[in-house]
Formats: sequence, structure tokens, C-alpha cells
Amino acid sequence: MSEQAPRLARRLAGIAPFHVMELLARARELEAAGRSIVHMEIGEPDFPTPRPMCDAGQRIIETGELFYTPALGLPQLREAIARFYLERHDVVVPSSRIIVTAGASGALLLAIAALIGPGDGVLMADPGYPCNRNFVRLMDGMADEIAVGADTAYQLTPDMVASRWRENTRAVMVASPSNPAGTLMPAAALRDIAAIARARGGSVIVDEIYQGLVYENETTTALSFADDVFVINSFSKYFNMTGWRLGWLVAPAPYVREIEKLAQNIFLAASTPAQHAALAAFAPETLEILEARRAEFRARRDFLLPALREIGFGIPVAPQGAFYIYADCSELSDDSFAFSRALLEEAGVAITPGADFGANAAGRHVRFAYTNAIPVLAEGVKRIAEFLRRR
Amino acid sequence: MSEQAPRLARRLAGIAPFHVMELLARARELEAAGRSIVHMEIGEPDFPTPRPMCDAGQRIIETGELFYTPALGLPQLREAIARFYLERHDVVVPSSRIIVTAGASGALLLAIAALIGPGDGVLMADPGYPCNRNFVRLMDGMADEIAVGADTAYQLTPDMVASRWRENTRAVMVASPSNPAGTLMPAAALRDIAAIARARGGSVIVDEIYQGLVYENETTTALSFADDVFVINSFSKYFNMTGWRLGWLVAPAPYVREIEKLAQNIFLAASTPAQHAALAAFAPETLEILEARRAEFRARRDFLLPALREIGFGIPVAPQGAFYIYADCSELSDDSFAFSRALLEEAGVAITPGADFGANAAGRHVRFAYTNAIPVLAEGVKRIAEFLRRR
Repeated sequence: MSEQAPRLARRLAGIAPFHVMELLARARELEAAGRSIVHMEIGEPDFPTPRPMCDAGQRIIETGELFYTPALGLPQLREAIARFYLERHDVVVPSSRIIVTAGASGALLLAIAALIGPGDGVLMADPGYPCNRNFVRLMDGMADEIAVGADTAYQLTPDMVASRWRENTRAVMVASPSNPAGTLMPAAALRDIAAIARARGGSVIVDEIYQGLVYENETTTALSFADDVFVINSFSKYFNMTGWRLGWLVAPAPYVREIEKLAQNIFLAASTPAQHAALAAFAPETLEILEARRAEFRARRDFLLPALREIGFGIPVAPQGAFYIYADCSELSDDSFAFSRALLEEAGVAITPGADFGANAAGRHVRFAYTNAIPVLAEGVKRIAEFLRRR
Repeated sequence: MSEQAPRLARRLAGIAPFHVMELLARARELEAAGRSIVHMEIGEPDFPTPRPMCDAGQRIIETGELFYTPALGLPQLREAIARFYLERHDVVVPSSRIIVTAGASGALLLAIAALIGPGDGVLMADPGYPCNRNFVRLMDGMADEIAVGADTAYQLTPDMVASRWRENTRAVMVASPSNPAGTLMPAAALRDIAAIARARGGSVIVDEIYQGLVYENETTTALSFADDVFVINSFSKYFNMTGWRLGWLVAPAPYVREIEKLAQNIFLAASTPAQHAALAAFAPETLEILEARRAEFRARRDFLLPALREIGFGIPVAPQGAFYIYADCSELSDDSFAFSRALLEEAGVAITPGADFGANAAGRHVRFAYTNAIPVLAEGVKRIAEFLRRR
């Protein structure tokens, strides 16, 4: 009887799996069979969690007292995040607006569940982080994707947002640094987008999960000029805590009580060991480790960017943050999925096809992650170059 | 500008906060002011996480390698859960159908998101676990609550399900042992309910999160007689891992791929430290600790049940599992919320008003949790008795 076709909620049809997961699974198969694979597909720092955070996690586990925290998070962690905004960004964010979540994923779910109902539209860039459109579809909203390219550094502009705002539009999502392009949105553009949304009674959701990983300018936060935006952040990327699953949401004050209600019901609370580990995230000795890693990411970018251009990839906009390079491969292939697959099978290099980030020119793009040491990246580039010469 | 009224998705209006949270917050205030409070409101075991699980968590943290696991969970944990079903329940559950989640909350979200679309109905008992109806409302479905009482041990019956099944009904949720009443659903009733749902093209979601905590008979699982039900389970209650946030879903085989897609997008993965800690959950030395605690819970129930009856609470059905007693307080008060509040303020005992579990006779009921040692429970009963005498 269980072999009947599943009877699914209609929303499932609109939610795509990650294509990169298929490639990753195939890469693991090849590795299990003895092949060497260079991984440039994974959006996860290769660094272990810094020791001070591990120590803090171990200390709470040593007590065995791993009980639920309040739904909005440990008060002392919410206060630590507020202090970080003050010290690092010179902006006052009351801890009462900070909601600790199970990864940035938990923060996105809370924000979108609070704002988006069936049929509501959400403006977002294509290419963009794949889960964004799927969170909107989970809530039976409509992801209204706007094609962006090199001319706007793969970011939405205020003009795009104003002209695409529709009757059903309820929110606009932006990301800075962005995934897959690693580009920043200028503060002025973000301020204008917030004003446009505000004037129309809508909301802005700003993904700042790669905020700590910027290589030229100092990072800014949307919170420095607006207190009515939803800001998503994470302990995964800059803080190297991916598997702990911890992030946070800064919500406008009038929304906090309603979001608490949702958090109580959907999550009960975020992970207790993770929250205690994160209490050590802002300690000077942790930040010293993280800043050294930021310098290493920058060096990797500075190595990989010219190397990829050299072998034929088009990268018209230099990424300024995150750990990705979004590259036009149309000089090399007109089918980025087939190209990624062939690269894996024939050259042992795993990258992510453009299709994971949207539909806009997806067949002509691929994403490289520099979440590996430079010698590994160099080996990857060498293999790709040889692969291209053989064709 | 942020002080404008929030513009919320309509679903938020239907999602209630936990009333007990207000009482808990007030209890903490009273404690901070020096009052002694007996907590009988919290649905969380008072035991620390067993040492072997803490050790396993500490070992993985020691490596610093806290990376994402696959979206469905660590393969070796999924296999360990499958082995547990075989060894403890004598039922074959392929590990491919086991999805590791962030608490039972994550499992409920996945199951309901996969099954329930806007306007779809879900049958459930009132009183019942408060989040169930809120998960359904989160997905813009309709919680179709059926009043149950002592005559059916606070459980749905096949007749109720058959007669309340409507055009829009897509699923029925049951729990055994139940919350708040701690009662079991007879296997035959569950089998019949599964058949009724199956014949109508609907699904059954079975909450088995208190499965390990049963005090008379051996526990059974719905998986022993149906492979097309969704089973929710948790490491929180029997395994004492609340704050780690880890649970699991057993899905019918044809749904697994679609649920994986959802899990990839909504969660990425469950907590890595928690999954490694849970690998030690089924070790003989852990189970020995847990079985001793089960005996302790049983002793507490056996103390508290007659003690509460003695002082005037109506408990027509003895709870057989979980760590709750659902009591009729109508001989003492016709407003269980005011009664709970007065009990806290005047006697220093925190309990949960019926309103948290639904609307059916909620004003005449309260829930006691025996998540405290017998001397503490005895002190609570003494205070309640004195409070009643004073009135």
C-alpha cells in the first residue's frame, strides 16, 4: 500500500532539490572508488570550529544540563550579539529584537512565515540563494525573481524593485555579500530599496550571513540605517559553526512578539550546546582566529579569480565577499550542467551548476567555492585547464 | 517608522502563544524575588543528558569538525534508529525511511508541510499537544479538533475519525502516549484509524515522542502494523536530550525523496553534535540509565496520582505514559486559568491551565507534570492542599 503515489501538498511541486547534491553524491561515489576529487562545490568553510567555541560547548555538555532555552534564545547570547553590533558596526540593536534560531534557515523560516501568506509575492534576485525562493513557496507565496547580471553586480537596484513591485508584493529579499556572486549591495541602494518597500507597506529581508567575510571594505549592516528591516545572520560562515546550526534574526520591534509565538510553536528553542558555544564567538581570541581565516579566504580569492579568468571563464565582476566566484562558462560550454558533470567525471573537479541559483542564464554559469586551501584550488584549476585542452 | 502596526501574514492571527509561558515567566520573577516555586508546569525531564551521550557529543566537538551532515541525517544514526526499532519493537524499519530532524518539531514541520496545503483539514484530539494545531495553521491548513474526554481516554476513536472526515480532510493526527493526558491509543483503534484514512486517500501522523515512557504495558509503534503512516519521535523525552534539539520522522517510502527536498531547503541538516551524541543513545549503558529513570517516573506518577485525587482533582483515567496528569479541577474552580494563576501567586506552585491544550472543557482542566523528584512533588501537593483549605 505504501507504494501508491504520494499525495503531496501542491507546494511541493514548486520546490526544487539542490542539483549540487546529486553531483556531491556522485563525487562521494567516485571517491569511494578511489578517485581523487577536488571539491569546489560546497558552500561550507573548511575550517574547524575555533577552539574557544568548542571549549565553551564542551563545558556546558560536561554539566549534562542541556535543557531548553527560552524560545528567543539565551538572554546572554542575545546581549552578546547586540554588543557585537555596537562594537563592530557601531549600531545600537536592542537585544530584545534579536531572535536566536536554528541556523539562518530558522531565521528565514520565521521571517517568511510571519510576512508571507498564500499568493503574496516576494521580489528577489536571480541568480540568488536557492532556498530563498523555496521558503517563499513553502508558505505558498510567489517568488518573483528579477534577472540580474554583471551590469548591477548581480544585485537588485532600487529601480528594479520599484518597477517590479506589484499589487501582491509583500517583501523584497536582498543579500550582501550575495550568493552565488559574492558581491555587495551599496548602502545607498539598500537604503533606497528599504524606502520603496516602506512606502508601499512592504518589508525588506536582508541576508547578511556572509557579513564577516568581506575582503576590501568594512562590512556594513542594514541595521545601521533602518530599524524596520528583517536581518538574517548566521554563526555558520564567518564563525565556522555550520554543523552546530545556529543563526539569528533581527526583527523590527513590532514583530518580535508575533515571531516569538511562531518560534515557540515551530522550534521550541535553538540548540542549547550551540548557544553556549556561540557565547565564545565574540571573544578576542576567537575573533583573532576568525580574522586570520578571513585573510586566508581573501588570499584564496586573489589566487582563484585570475586563475579562472586565465583559463577562459568570464568573471566580469570581482567578488568582494563570501567564498564564491560566479563564472560565465559560455566560452567553454552552453550547458553548465553537462559541463559540471563532465568536469566531475573526467577531471575529478566538483563545482555547482548555475541551475541551483535560478533560471536566468543558468546554463551559461557555474559557481566555484574557495573553501579549500590554495594548493587544492591550484590542483583544481590545473585539472580544469587540462580538461579544457583535451576537449 | 518601525512603530507602525506590523503587517503580518494572516495565519499569525490563528496561532496562539503558550499560556504556560506567561506563568513560567511570572514564576521566574517570583523566584528572582526570593519566593520558592514548585514547578509542575514544564514538559521537560529534569534529568541531565546521560553521560555516555554527553561523552559522545564532547568527543566530536573535541575534533572541531562540526560540519553539515546529509540533510536526512548521519547514515550511522539512521541505521542505529532502525536497529532500535528491530531490537526494541521487533519491527523492520528501513533506515532509508528515517529522517533525522531538529527535534520532533522539525519532524512535524516536514510531515505537515509535505501533506497539508491551504484549506486542507487535519483531524486531531482536543485536548492535545498545542503545537499540532499551530503547525497546521502555519501551512494555512485547518485544524479540525474533535472534543475527547475520559470516556475514550482522551483519544480519538475510529468512529470519530470516520464521522468527522470531510471533503477537505487530508490527515489525522494521533498521539500515544498523549499529551496532556498520558493515555495510550489501543493498537486496534490505531489500525482502524489508519485503514479509514487510507480508504479516503488521507494520511495518519502518529506522535510517538513519549513512546519510551510507558509504565504498565510494553510500548508499541504504529510502524508494526502500517508502513504508510508518518511517525514522529524524539530524543528529547525518553532520551533526556531536550536542549540538543533532535528527533526523527519515519515517512512512508514514496514520500522520502520529497521530504528530503524540503529538509535540504528548510533545515540543511540537524545539529551535528546532537547527532553524534545520539549515536550513544542506544548503548546498553545508556539504556540502563534511561530504564532507571523510567522507573523513577513511574514512581512519581504512582505518588502524584492518588495524592491529587485525594485533594479534590478529578482524574477519571489513570495516565499510562508520558509525565503528565490531566486533571479536572471543576470541583475547585470553574476557571482553570485564574486557578493556575492564583495557585502560583498564593501557593508558589506552577501548573499548566487547560487552555494550552485546546478549547474543549479547557476552563475545567489543568495539567500537572511530574518532572520533579517525589519530595518536590510532595511539597507541591502540600502547598496546593493548604491553598485549597484557605479558600
